[in-house]
Amino acid sequence: ARRIAFEWLATLFRPRARHGHKGDYGRVLVVGGGETMPGAARLCGEAACRAGAGLVTVAAHPSSVAAVAAARAELIVHGVAQPADLAPLVRAADVIAIGPGLGRDVWAQRLFGAVLDARRPLVVDADALNLLAAELQERADWILTPHPGEAARLLDCAAREVQADRMGATRALAGRFGGVVVLKGAGTLVAGNAKDPIALCDRGNPGMASGGMGDLLTGVLAGLAAQGMGLYEAACAGVWAHAAAGDDAARGGEAGLLASDLLPYLRARLHSLHVDGLPPSR
Amino acid sequence: ARRIAFEWLATLFRPRARHGHKGDYGRVLVVGGGETMPGAARLCGEAACRAGAGLVTVAAHPSSVAAVAAARAELIVHGVAQPADLAPLVRAADVIAIGPGLGRDVWAQRLFGAVLDARRPLVVDADALNLLAAELQERADWILTPHPGEAARLLDCAAREVQADRMGATRALAGRFGGVVVLKGAGTLVAGNAKDPIALCDRGNPGMASGGMGDLLTGVLAGLAAQGMGLYEAACAGVWAHAAAGDDAARGGEAGLLASDLLPYLRARLHSLHVDGLPPSR
Amino acid sequence: ARRIAFEWLATLFRPRARHGHKGDYGRVLVVGGGETMPGAARLCGEAACRAGAGLVTVAAHPSSVAAVAAARAELIVHGVAQPADLAPLVRAADVIAIGPGLGRDVWAQRLFGAVLDARRPLVVDADALNLLAAELQERADWILTPHPGEAARLLDCAAREVQADRMGATRALAGRFGGVVVLKGAGTLVAGNAKDPIALCDRGNPGMASGGMGDLLTGVLAGLAAQGMGLYEAACAGVWAHAAAGDDAARGGEAGLLASDLLPYLRARLHSLHVDGLPPSR
Amino acid sequence: ARRIAFEWLATLFRPRARHGHKGDYGRVLVVGGGETMPGAARLCGEAACRAGAGLVTVAAHPSSVAAVAAARAELIVHGVAQPADLAPLVRAADVIAIGPGLGRDVWAQRLFGAVLDARRPLVVDADALNLLAAELQERADWILTPHPGEAARLLDCAAREVQADRMGATRALAGRFGGVVVLKGAGTLVAGNAKDPIALCDRGNPGMASGGMGDLLTGVLAGLAAQGMGLYEAACAGVWAHAAAGDDAARGGEAGLLASDLLPYLRARLHSLHVDGLPPSR
Repeated sequence: ARRIAFEWLATLFRPRARHGHKGDYGRVLVVGGGETMPGAARLCGEAACRAGAGLVTVAAHPSSVAAVAAARAELIVHGVAQPADLAPLVRAADVIAIGPGLGRDVWAQRLFGAVLDARRPLVVDADALNLLAAELQERADWILTPHPGEAARLLDCAAREVQADRMGATRALAGRFGGVVVLKGAGTLVAGNAKDPIALCDRGNPGMASGGMGDLLTGVLAGLAAQGMGLYEAACAGVWAHAAAGDDAARGGEAGLLASDLLPYLRARLHSLHVDGLPPSR
Repeated sequence: ARRIAFEWLATLFRPRARHGHKGDYGRVLVVGGGETMPGAARLCGEAACRAGAGLVTVAAHPSSVAAVAAARAELIVHGVAQPADLAPLVRAADVIAIGPGLGRDVWAQRLFGAVLDARRPLVVDADALNLLAAELQERADWILTPHPGEAARLLDCAAREVQADRMGATRALAGRFGGVVVLKGAGTLVAGNAKDPIALCDRGNPGMASGGMGDLLTGVLAGLAAQGMGLYEAACAGVWAHAAAGDDAARGGEAGLLASDLLPYLRARLHSLHVDGLPPSR
Repeated sequence: ARRIAFEWLATLFRPRARHGHKGDYGRVLVVGGGETMPGAARLCGEAACRAGAGLVTVAAHPSSVAAVAAARAELIVHGVAQPADLAPLVRAADVIAIGPGLGRDVWAQRLFGAVLDARRPLVVDADALNLLAAELQERADWILTPHPGEAARLLDCAAREVQADRMGATRALAGRFGGVVVLKGAGTLVAGNAKDPIALCDRGNPGMASGGMGDLLTGVLAGLAAQGMGLYEAACAGVWAHAAAGDDAARGGEAGLLASDLLPYLRARLHSLHVDGLPPSR
Repeated sequence: ARRIAFEWLATLFRPRARHGHKGDYGRVLVVGGGETMPGAARLCGEAACRAGAGLVTVAAHPSSVAAVAAARAELIVHGVAQPADLAPLVRAADVIAIGPGLGRDVWAQRLFGAVLDARRPLVVDADALNLLAAELQERADWILTPHPGEAARLLDCAAREVQADRMGATRALAGRFGGVVVLKGAGTLVAGNAKDPIALCDRGNPGMASGGMGDLLTGVLAGLAAQGMGLYEAACAGVWAHAAAGDDAARGGEAGLLASDLLPYLRARLHSLHVDGLPPSR
């Protein structure tokens, strides 16, 4: 695997054009936030904002709307009771992130089905990966972001086997599902199509093993993709920025690190890529 | 167009009289915050507070009240189901800002009609501009704040045509609708009546191309107008302070800049105008 | 009038006993937060906490409970639909603050009546003062905190007359209503019983003329009284700390100062009184 | 009693393994947050996160869900109307904290019963201790955290008697109820089984005598236990870190100290134990 290098990533970002308007930076739709996890959808939406998306909409369970909307004024929040409520939101989206806080109940399954039917690039995470394991399909325009347990369900093997051969598992996932695969864990791997080398992230720390960290990554990937990056490049850049921000935030301690702690560092790390300078603290 | 200069703006502000009370600084009413966008109304209301209004009330959809009220304790928040609920709030207001998060459904249309009937200075933004495009009228006591897409709908042309001749479009809007027109975008323009020169803002950056930035500007303009400034002067000062605050906040990166990030800088920029000193960081 | 001097105030505070428990620092009950103003009750409750009360409970309109509780985890929040719901809360309270966000509707009137019937020291503010103007009574164990408009309603005269003779108005209020009277405005005055001199606060600034500042003061007074200070001393110390904190916070600009901005400075100012050292920034 | 020493505590913590995932750091379930006290459950859950638990779920009254979820995105929040709703959450938990904001009504009693039936290590606090006083039982796998008033109810004596012989009361509680007992107050004591010495905490200050401080401690203990520490060690380490964080936060003043103020310091204190260096500010 090739190490994800700052120098390469910096070539993928350019300063914003002076005349850009919010449509130029893309619209992200986050589908998630079931009854018990409004926070997951909020973290994902906030991360998409901080990654630079022009406009971010969250489609959540009606009972979760207030908790998402109260926390982050810049998010648009729709309560969706059924797939029909999702249709206009899907049409307006450039990229859809599905999974954070979604759950696996009937509501979740029906929304997941509706999103799969949409012709939009997807970032698929968390429970949406568990739902995907039940109805295998291949697709070029998505990023899947499993941790080892979810990867095992997708490959129908044990998490232990995934961890024993992370390179092999990543290749197998990319072969079976297509698109871009991000296998999370210590030394996250990113696989794209055949011509892209498998990329290895050498940043990150075990303080990031806490609830919400994956939701944040999903939002970053969607936010970068919405701005027009290729999915493989967005995955590499997003994984690196998320891990580097995690290292920044962990200077105050690995234990007790929370996902929201990464948000200010995330913007700073992406800023360092945009201005093509040296990364902070290397 | 004449550049909006700090030196001129500073002549418009004076230190507050020692014996001022909150009635002296005006009451702003924000009408917006439909079911999916409580945050837009909150940002607008918070910006009006930070611009120095004495008292700020938000009239929002009943389902959005909790999300607005939880976030900012200083706002008074009324759930309005219909125009009749709005009547006492309109009577108490010195300036009304309409549009942030309003939407375009029947609820929105009816509130918009009620606000147009009120004899109060208005700041009209976002979906209220889209509603206005459907029922043209002229008026002296309002500020309209379209971005190029909204301007195109108001002029019944293409956004591309607006951008090709921003000065002409601004003049055409002022001619057709009266009052003060703020054409947003890189190099925001402000047009008042015939004797006022068209003013150009040379601050701001493309990091401000993200959801919520316009809601913030609307609140600043309403907050300044509520304190007794003329609408043209309020528009010039508000546009400048908003853009300058955006530049301050963008030092941490243009991508990922969010509207709320501007709030602390906004107060500092307005403070520099009040104390008639040198602006920060020039 | 005698100036409220730091040196005198500092004699009223002592470092906390090592073995104090939360019961020793008193229970404050805030009654307010009607449907449109949860924020006012929250600011009052938070200020009581920051002034050092051991436990603070807010009794608010059922529809306002979520907005108060979401913002400040340390507050206990009860939805009270009618006076009977208030009874157990009143019994548990050492001091009751009534008024912030109360409104004047039937719900408000009934709660106000129930609180007047309770045998507890009171701090009476905002709409509770307007309700009091309708049913005059005298009482020794309360602090009334009118601004000039409310004072005028209580004295059945014009606000202009109150401002023309602030000393006279303060004396008249104390004579008519008993207890301690705080007449707010530039140069706040505090009157107690005949032997206490009328005290004048020479701190504060017109940036404090914004919604919520009075709610904060009410909470400070209740929080100090709950810790066992006499009402006159609590009023003098609270008025001074609130005004001094306002001056601290206004260093970033008078226009746009919000009540919550004072909270960190409030604790610091009270801390300087507790440790009997020199006040910050004199 | 033996003083709880930093040097000993530091031997109990190790840097996290590079390949840890969130399952390795345990799942905490907080049961509390009745209708009037969502904040208590939130503080407890947040403290468990900050102590390093991998995943924290709050089971609260359905009416309290929104207030808990809005404030802290990393928490999963379930509305539980009855014990049956609790069953799947209990099964997924490694440690359960019960009590913060629980109340003593029928809803609380039924949840308490269901938690007692679960075969999971418990941290029992606040109203759960009052419920326990009504149905005495002994158990090895719990930590009880009474303040002197709750201890008195558990021992059926007066709080004054508890305070007169804190060592004796702690021993009596451990004898009667088993497990680990934390007797809070100035000089908190920790008793485990016969071979463990009673430990004394010499940190902490009377600014910590305010609502919510106990909820925070409960969360810290549960978070440490979920990571695999023995209950006695978790109790000693949690009590020390909580008290030391309280001393850090009280540098800005003891009066007006709020529980949330401790959270940043809590992580820093636990970090100092993990890295086995010198504690800050000794």
